[in-house]
Formats: sequence, structure tokens, C-alpha cells
Amino acid sequence: MDAATRSRIETRMQWVEDEMEAVLASRPADAVLYSMQRYHLGWLSDAFEPLPVELARRYGGKKLRGVLCLLACEAAGGDPAAAVPAAAAVEFIHNFSLIHDDIEDEDPERRHRPTVWRLWGVPQAVNAGSNMQVLVNEAALRLSDRGVSDDRALSVIARLTRAMLAMTEGQALDLGWQDRWDLSVEHYLGMAAGKTAALTEAAAWCGAAVATADATALDHFARFGQAFGLAFQARDDYLGIWGRSEQTGKPVGADIQHGKRSLPIVHALEKSARQGQEPSRLPALRACLETRDVEGVLAALEEAGSRPFVEQIVARYTAEALSHLDALADHRAPDTGRSDLRAIAAYALGREE
Amino acid sequence: MDAATRSRIETRMQWVEDEMEAVLASRPADAVLYSMQRYHLGWLSDAFEPLPVELARRYGGKKLRGVLCLLACEAAGGDPAAAVPAAAAVEFIHNFSLIHDDIEDEDPERRHRPTVWRLWGVPQAVNAGSNMQVLVNEAALRLSDRGVSDDRALSVIARLTRAMLAMTEGQALDLGWQDRWDLSVEHYLGMAAGKTAALTEAAAWCGAAVATADATALDHFARFGQAFGLAFQARDDYLGIWGRSEQTGKPVGADIQHGKRSLPIVHALEKSARQGQEPSRLPALRACLETRDVEGVLAALEEAGSRPFVEQIVARYTAEALSHLDALADHRAPDTGRSDLRAIAAYALGREE
Repeated sequence: MDAATRSRIETRMQWVEDEMEAVLASRPADAVLYSMQRYHLGWLSDAFEPLPVELARRYGGKKLRGVLCLLACEAAGGDPAAAVPAAAAVEFIHNFSLIHDDIEDEDPERRHRPTVWRLWGVPQAVNAGSNMQVLVNEAALRLSDRGVSDDRALSVIARLTRAMLAMTEGQALDLGWQDRWDLSVEHYLGMAAGKTAALTEAAAWCGAAVATADATALDHFARFGQAFGLAFQARDDYLGIWGRSEQTGKPVGADIQHGKRSLPIVHALEKSARQGQEPSRLPALRACLETRDVEGVLAALEEAGSRPFVEQIVARYTAEALSHLDALADHRAPDTGRSDLRAIAAYALGREE
Repeated sequence: MDAATRSRIETRMQWVEDEMEAVLASRPADAVLYSMQRYHLGWLSDAFEPLPVELARRYGGKKLRGVLCLLACEAAGGDPAAAVPAAAAVEFIHNFSLIHDDIEDEDPERRHRPTVWRLWGVPQAVNAGSNMQVLVNEAALRLSDRGVSDDRALSVIARLTRAMLAMTEGQALDLGWQDRWDLSVEHYLGMAAGKTAALTEAAAWCGAAVATADATALDHFARFGQAFGLAFQARDDYLGIWGRSEQTGKPVGADIQHGKRSLPIVHALEKSARQGQEPSRLPALRACLETRDVEGVLAALEEAGSRPFVEQIVARYTAEALSHLDALADHRAPDTGRSDLRAIAAYALGREE
């Protein structure tokens, strides 16, 4: 990523963060609830003291989905300032679901820090996540203050709502899969379409919808976001098994330890079950998964060719995402917006530092 | 309550339930997530089989807040059919917060049945509650299908959003109070205004707002809903200590066992702390509360006069609620709507069967 692109993206990251802070600042200042949220967002320490900017960036994440939303608005010919409330809403969705997912998966750490439930207990964490889910609406309702018409604001809220439905439906599937052995890559892609890609799809669609009502263009933005989300999740699953700990913020083999049905595992399960050769490899893989035998699972994944398979899935959806950006060239989309989207997609999927 | 009033209220209860079912029916039919929600709503058994209507009514609650919303619409001169999506949204708010509250309070039973988290675990229950919170938007967005204008639909969503913020802020306070000894009735009323009264306020306001834009009338509806909610919560706290188990659906003394800072307890704490006489009664009360000594706490409440105090609070807010209905007589409000609101308020506050 060149310096000018990086600088544009960082400015937009800051706009998203400023809008989130403005939404939080409108709530009672003495409520501990919002201090917990600011901790989760990387702005405060666990003693509720401000963190230096570099640490805040490290702990708070890169606001990838919010930035996608702003860049989509620009690529659709709009002023990104108008889309800032939608971008903040998208980030509140992402973050409330992280607070809840950490409870549901019993994850003790996120981005190298203790999770909200570990510090303040499950009851406060459930409630803090639910409150942040309300902030999604609170942020989106600010679109009117930016000159967005009522019917467009409603359609943004409807799209965000649809994304949250898909995410919680995907999460319910994922939670129910931890003792399932009969899963296929097709099952996985359906689940990931809800759990992850629905939000990146909504982010791109909502940003663009603030700028344009062109249905074909909006469809390309949505499909870009969807394919990007699937590539992103497949890449995340890849890193969850083969990534270095410093890169992922999780211990090596964490996904195997947790019994997660991530893409590599599902691929190996499907392949073992389908081999039809004697002796079947499924019982051996199942035994390794059940005993959380990380080395054994890694060997089985190697045997099944799951690593190149996942790389291929990442490449396929990345190409699909970029093809929708190319298609937008016919829709009077400004080149800077599109090339920034392309840059951030490459960045996120390659996980460059 | 006379037979004609009862029949009108039951019809409206059914409308609310039908709309909630229509919202759920728009989601994937095979998702276990929605079966759990239908169990919670009293429509299905824990094996996901339909329940007979009488049991469904018993387990599903009376849709009090949704009915309030429809009656407020009628009392403001509107067609209640237009307010049905808002009423369903209000009930989804109430019910998602029950699913989450049961997790947060570790309550094993609700309405004489095991709670969602007890049957399907905390992870699925957190996610099911969060999904139902999304259904709030999904329901409210259907206002457009009933001919409600975009700007009015947005103001209903904004009011529901404000109520959910107040509820989760109130719940965060309540959760933080279980080891506090320095609470006053004023603290309590602030918490209850958020945790309970914000939703009854929003229910009445939203119903009326579908029918009228008259700011004075809307203000009376909101203040009716607020005072009603405070009376209702005080009455609920009364029953949580002195109510019969069949009436409340909870074991006798459950609130004392849970260390809840309910109104009677907070009153006795404040009074014991303020007595200024030697020896202070606070240490004795505190010891009983800490050891969950139900008999000891009951004696201390008797001593402090907490029972008549709570009855007085219920009476005061009931009178305040009714005064706002009286004030609406000047606003061309139809008499049937207002008298039905009066009837249901008396019913809910007296808990007649």
C-alpha cells in the first residue's frame, strides 16, 4: 500500500472512531457500562484510564468494516462524511458481536487482552454487548443529521438489521456444530455467509446506498462485500491453525483446542468421509479432534490437502470480490474510491502489517 | 374488568402475537434458534411441539406492553392495526431482555418453566436473545407496510432505541448493586425508570405516535406509560417478597435469596442507615441479607415499615398514571381507548386473574 493510500485510509479510520466516540459521549458519563465498552474498543485500560494512541490502535482493531463502508460511499461517487454514521453502526455491530462471541466461545483473550466477560463477569458482559447492539440503531439514526433522506436512512437500517439476523443465525449454527462430524464445505460456506460475510456485504452496500440509488451498482457493492467477507473468514480460519500467534492475537492451535469447525477442519472431515477407501480416515481424524491432539490434527490436515484447499478458497473469493470492483468501472465510479477499496481488500486478505 | 373490555383486550393480545409470529415466520423455518424463541414465547414445548392455547397463554405472558401500545394508538384516535408492528417490536424488546436477564440473574425458571439458558446453555441463549433484539428492528420496519410514513417510522425506531438504551443502562446498575449497602429509594427509582418504565413509556408513546403528532398528547401518553411502569415494578417487587408463588411464578422469597436490591430492601436499607439511633439496625439487616436469612429479612422489613411504604409507592404512581389519562380528555381522545387503558392498568397493578 502506498503512502497516500495509507494516509487516506487512516483518516477514514479516525472518522469512524470519532463518530463512535460521539455516540458514546451522548450517553451518561458516569455509567461503568460505557467504560467497559471503551475498554473493549481499545480506548481505555482495564482501570479505565486512557491508552496511548499506538496501543489503542493495536487493541482496538483497524475498523476495517467501517472503513469499507466509507470507501464504498466514495467509490459510488458520494461524500464519505455522509456515510460516517452508517460506518460507526457497522463497527458497533462487529464489536457487540465480538463481546458476545467471546462469552459464547469462552475466549479469555482478544487482541492480547482479557475479554470483557473475564474482567467484569458474564452478566455485565452480556448486558454490555446488548447495549452496544442498541448503539447500532443510535448511530444509524444520525444519518438524518448528515442530510441523508428518511427513506434512505430506513433502507440502511433495514440492511443492517438483515445483516445482524444473518450473523446471529450463522452463530447459532456454528455453536451447534462443535460435536458434529458430518459437515461439508457447503455447510461451512452457508454459515460463514451469515456469520461474517453478511456484515461486510452490508458495510459496502450501506456506504454506497448513501451515495447512489443505482440498483446494479449497489448489487456489485453488495457482492464485492460478500465475496470479500468469505475470503476474509477463510483466511482467518487459515491463520487460526497455521498463523503465528503474534499475527492472530490467539495461541497457536487455539481453533483446534476449541473444537471449532473452521474451514480446514470441515474440508478434512468431508474428504475423510468421502474417501470411501478402507480403512476410512474419519475415525482417526475424529479421535484427534476429540482429544484436542493438535499435532495429530495438523498431520491429518496435511494428508487431506486442506492447506492448499483453503488457500484456493481465499484466492477464489478474492478474485470474485475484485471482479465486482472492476464491473463498477462502467458505473461512473471514481477511480480513487475503487483503487482504495482494492488496496484495503488486498491488505486485509494478505494481512500485511 | 367487564366482558366487553376483556374481549377487546384479548383480541388485541392476539393481534400482537400474530404479528410476532409473522415476523418469526419470515426467517428460515429450520433454524433451531427460532424454535428456542418460540419456546420462550410459550408457543412450543421444550421438544418444540405446539402447546395448547391455554398453556401458551400461561407460559407466554399477557403481552401487556404490546397491548398498551395498541390501546394508546386507539386512545389517540388511530387505527390500532397501524400500530401492530410497533406493539410486536415492544414485545420483542421485553422478551429479549427476559432471555438475557435470566442468564444474568442465573434464574433457572420463568413462568413455571426452565429458562432458555437452562435448556440450551448460556452460549445459545445469549445469541438467541441478541437475535430477538434484531427482531425489534425487523418488526418496527414493517410499519411502512401499514401506511405509516417514513419520518414517523424513524421516530418510533428512535423511541424504541432510547428505551433499550435506558433498559440496559438500568440493568447494568442493578447488576452492580448486589453487594451495595448504601442505596436509597431515589437510587432505586432512577434504576427502575430505566429498567422497566422506559419500555412502558415507549410502548404508550409509540402507539400514540402512529395516530397523532400532537406533542402535548404524546407527552401525556409517555408520562402515563412511565408512571405505570414504576407502579408496575414496585408492585412486582412487592410480590417478589410477599406474593404467593402461584401468582408470581417464582419461589417465595426468591428476591431475598438472590440478594436483589428490590424496593422493599432498598427502603429498609435506607431507613436503617438513616435512623441515627444506637444501636444502628443496619448491621443486623445486612447480616440477614448476606446470609440469605429470609425470616430475618422479613422481620426487618416489617420493623422498617417497608410493606406499607411500597404499597404507598404503587398507589402514588398508579394515581399519577391515571391523571395523565384524565388529562387526555381535553385532547379529543376517544373514550373507549382511554377506558380500556384505565382497565388494563388497574388489572396489571392489582394483578387480578
